[in-house]
Amino acid sequence: MAEFKHLVVAKFKEGVVLDEILSGMEKLVSDIESVISFQWGEDIESLDMLRQGYTHAFMMTFKSKDEFNAFLGHPKHLEFSETFSQVIEKIVVLDFPVVLSKSPSPPPPPPPA
Amino acid sequence: MAEFKHLVVAKFKEGVVLDEILSGMEKLVSDIESVISFQWGEDIESLDMLRQGYTHAFMMTFKSKDEFNAFLGHPKHLEFSETFSQVIEKIVVLDFPVVLSKSPSPPPPPPPA
Repeated sequence: MAEFKHLVVAKFKEGVVLDEILSGMEKLVSDIESVISFQWGEDIESLDMLRQGYTHAFMMTFKSKDEFNAFLGHPKHLEFSETFSQVIEKIVVLDFPVVLSKSPSPPPPPPPA
Repeated sequence: MAEFKHLVVAKFKEGVVLDEILSGMEKLVSDIESVISFQWGEDIESLDMLRQGYTHAFMMTFKSKDEFNAFLGHPKHLEFSETFSQVIEKIVVLDFPVVLSKSPSPPPPPPPA
C-alpha cells in the first residue's frame, strides 16, 4: 500500500510569530503516532514568479490513506487547524498517495572482514 | 548539511497527456545523479477550497543547495523546463533546505543469533 502525503504550502499573515506555529505543529506530529515523518522548509531560492508569494512547505507522511483520514478527524488536529487557519494569508493543500520514482541508494555493504 | 528540496505544485492545461510529462520527468531525475530522491502524487483528498485547482505535487531531493543549483543549470533540466512550462496552467515552486522534525523509527535490531 502506498504511503500517503499531506502537503501544505502557506503564506503567513504579517506579524505572525512563526516559532509558535512551528512548535504547535511539532507537538502535533509528535503526539500523533500515525504521522510517520514530518519535514518542512522555508523557501530561499525560488523566483518570485514561481513562488507566488508562498513561503513555507510542510509535508506529513502517513502509512496509508486510512491513517491520514483518522488524523484529519483527530481532536488535536482539529484544534491545531483552527489556530493555523487564523495565521495564514493563503494556502494550497494537496493530499495524495506517494509515487516514489527514485529513492536514495542503500549504503554500500561493509567491506569483508 | 541540510538536504535541499525542490517542490513543484502544478495544474496542467486541459488535454495535456500526463504520461508523457511523467516519463520525461522520470527520465530527467534518473539521468541526473544529484537528484537523490523523487516522489510525486496526484491529489485525491483535499477540499476544493484548499486545493485551489492544483492537482499534482512533485518533490525532488538533493544532498545540498549546491547540488540543487547545479541541477537548475543542467542542460537536461533546462530542456525539460522548457517543455514543462508549455503544459502547465499554473504553478507554485518552493526551494528550501529540509528541516526534518519527525522521521520513521529505524527498524528494530535483528534478534541475537
